[in-house]
Amino acid sequence: MISFYYHPTPNPSKVALFLEEAEIDYKLIPVDTSRGEQHTPEYRAINPNGKVPALTDGDITLFDSSAILLYLGQKTGRFIGDRSPAAQAELMSWLMLIGTGLGPFTGQAIHFTHYAPKPNDYALNRYTFEAKRHWDLIDQRLATRHYMMGDHYTIVDMSLWGWCRGIDYLMGEAGWVRFPNVKRLYDELNSRAAVQRANELRTRHVFKAELDDEAKASLFQHGWLTA
Amino acid sequence: MISFYYHPTPNPSKVALFLEEAEIDYKLIPVDTSRGEQHTPEYRAINPNGKVPALTDGDITLFDSSAILLYLGQKTGRFIGDRSPAAQAELMSWLMLIGTGLGPFTGQAIHFTHYAPKPNDYALNRYTFEAKRHWDLIDQRLATRHYMMGDHYTIVDMSLWGWCRGIDYLMGEAGWVRFPNVKRLYDELNSRAAVQRANELRTRHVFKAELDDEAKASLFQHGWLTA
Repeated sequence: MISFYYHPTPNPSKVALFLEEAEIDYKLIPVDTSRGEQHTPEYRAINPNGKVPALTDGDITLFDSSAILLYLGQKTGRFIGDRSPAAQAELMSWLMLIGTGLGPFTGQAIHFTHYAPKPNDYALNRYTFEAKRHWDLIDQRLATRHYMMGDHYTIVDMSLWGWCRGIDYLMGEAGWVRFPNVKRLYDELNSRAAVQRANELRTRHVFKAELDDEAKASLFQHGWLTA
Repeated sequence: MISFYYHPTPNPSKVALFLEEAEIDYKLIPVDTSRGEQHTPEYRAINPNGKVPALTDGDITLFDSSAILLYLGQKTGRFIGDRSPAAQAELMSWLMLIGTGLGPFTGQAIHFTHYAPKPNDYALNRYTFEAKRHWDLIDQRLATRHYMMGDHYTIVDMSLWGWCRGIDYLMGEAGWVRFPNVKRLYDELNSRAAVQRANELRTRHVFKAELDDEAKASLFQHGWLTA
């Protein structure tokens, strides 16, 4: 039985989508990161990095959303596209572009847009530029392909979907004007029953929404007001 | 024949180390990122992200150092450790922790320590905290294991090795005092003949060292003096 450690943020959402698409039985374990539940010794034994998502499957323990998506894709043989070595290399390269670039830089852009104390013009400009540059690359790719890997709906699309809400949060409507091909795919995915089930997971537990001192200390360990 | 697109920076160095450890024949193709060679249409056709490393192998094209290390590990069956599903899940999780966390945050910490205009106290503190937090996790893991995966020298160690010089650059001697177990592994790896061959690659081409306006525009597209 799979145990899935979840919070309704972009990286765990990708894994929720795979589990729902593949209709895998799993136990949902909420980790309320605004209450510091990612820092308990019990959770650190599963993910020493103190982040979500994590997943256990018998004696197997995984953390990091890209690692988990790859594991689930290989375990089930689903959503990994064409099996040729060239296609698998392409899938891995784009999965990593999202995991090591698009995700981290979009996250930093959101931090400096919405959370970090102002003024922070240099960092804000650096990260919003890098986030948009990554989304431009994705949008250009989707201009000539239905899914990120062409005709196949794969874990790369799931990874992308997890971060799409970041466009809204960063840029609002202007984001969807700039990235129309991402919008087309995002709308299509959002109409899928599995996406709706993945989105509903957030209602199964009352996650703390308030960004009070406890939440700030839990989420931003480097200190909140250091500027 | 493998073509390896290289610059003597952390991420390409990891791939150089694998190729030298496995004694694979390859063609070294320098990409002088301080001269903007990563932005040419020819290079973007290989890596749309305009970064190094990239690698081609017949009709296979890969970018991102973690994707390339996984590909080479699977192709050769070497440096991927124990084949049990549990061990492979662990290897993938730690490879991702380095690729999506340690690498990006160490890179950002170096940027705000050495390159970004001052003052930038909030960003500097945020990223140096996150970089050190990641290195602490690695150091704790290496306190009870010879290599990152225990008895097996794997691509996780190679990925780590690529970024170890970042400790020196960020913290100098204080870094090695704080992370003694990383130092122990780094010293051991540096004594390997393959590491010495990987390090020598930088001497095969005259890479631009000066951080002049061309280099700044090539490396920091978001603009140099926006603070």
